[in-house]
Amino acid sequence: MDATTPVAALKAGIRQFAAVRGWDPYHTPKNLAMALASEVGELCELFRWLTPEESVAASADAKRREAIADELADIANIVFLLSSHTGIDLSDAIAAKMAKNEVKYPTPV
Amino acid sequence: MDATTPVAALKAGIRQFAAVRGWDPYHTPKNLAMALASEVGELCELFRWLTPEESVAASADAKRREAIADELADIANIVFLLSSHTGIDLSDAIAAKMAKNEVKYPTPV
Amino acid sequence: MDATTPVAALKAGIRQFAAVRGWDPYHTPKNLAMALASEVGELCELFRWLTPEESVAASADAKRREAIADELADIANIVFLLSSHTGIDLSDAIAAKMAKNEVKYPTPV
Amino acid sequence: MDATTPVAALKAGIRQFAAVRGWDPYHTPKNLAMALASEVGELCELFRWLTPEESVAASADAKRREAIADELADIANIVFLLSSHTGIDLSDAIAAKMAKNEVKYPTPV
Repeated sequence: MDATTPVAALKAGIRQFAAVRGWDPYHTPKNLAMALASEVGELCELFRWLTPEESVAASADAKRREAIADELADIANIVFLLSSHTGIDLSDAIAAKMAKNEVKYPTPV
Repeated sequence: MDATTPVAALKAGIRQFAAVRGWDPYHTPKNLAMALASEVGELCELFRWLTPEESVAASADAKRREAIADELADIANIVFLLSSHTGIDLSDAIAAKMAKNEVKYPTPV
Repeated sequence: MDATTPVAALKAGIRQFAAVRGWDPYHTPKNLAMALASEVGELCELFRWLTPEESVAASADAKRREAIADELADIANIVFLLSSHTGIDLSDAIAAKMAKNEVKYPTPV
Repeated sequence: MDATTPVAALKAGIRQFAAVRGWDPYHTPKNLAMALASEVGELCELFRWLTPEESVAASADAKRREAIADELADIANIVFLLSSHTGIDLSDAIAAKMAKNEVKYPTPV
């Protein structure tokens, strides 16, 4: 569950999965970025002809929900691989980027 | 740090950031999937003309590393928004998908 | 053949294909851009784990060549639909953009 | 104009543009596919928060129309480079793919 799972545990899980299959040599940043484009394309395929409202409804439909969850998992795993292989801590990167975004998009008063 | 940050904390962080700016109505699954394609495109831009080996070296270069970290953060945040708005628990989705992948890609003996 | 086929003929071909199937209402610029992300993802899937050199060799392999050609056709057709539905003449748009790029990337002397 | 411009003329134009700048060695199929993901991401950026209806209106707004035209030109040029470097004739590939699609999506009677 997201409530109790540290990001590092998910990163370790997918690294282990890839390592035992001998996939590490393929997981350069360039290749992983390209794999991300491929997986995001699969997510876009699920929504491309739907209206935004229909895309909300699709997430509540059991069969479509599983397809969305599967694509989301694939995408997240590649994000975790990229974070792990580059040594970029995701939580730190997010904190740093959100500090920039606080300036770029100030809170409305 | 990823070692101690639960996924839920990152999800709550970006939800709060978006909520105070009034962005929630825009964050339908369709729009977020499209935003993901846009952010992944920015990550691909950093690597497109590099060899895989150069993409490894780029991650060690301070200036390029920051650009990669920023894009990775943007992508992760949209993944977290999608997870939060659809109510799909990311850790559970990953566990379910990896169980399928264990069958699809058996561990070599 | 590309040597004798005007761009307009390809645009008319895919418009006709879509029209007889009643697909026009789905072909808004937003949906088509999202479909493009989906199709480009399929092209990226063919190359993601290959080295750049292997991607050159793949184009010469009969089976892989057909897969690449199919994805290229899908992508081109969506570009033509976008051009047609927005009324943006592709040849004119390319000429205008390349004039900008001549300034941005001056010819080396 | 698309009405009179053969596809081959557009392909020759972008090949010439790249050749005089010494870019050919970078234009492997893998790199071009990745560049396509990057450019399609920029197109998606223009539409991600719009409703499908607003995306239609955006194409009629002079300033946004130019931005769309520029992205469309960038995408088309990479498609032409891929076609040219792989020797895959785009018009032939489209004809072959549409013959498959005629079977996959029969004309309603």
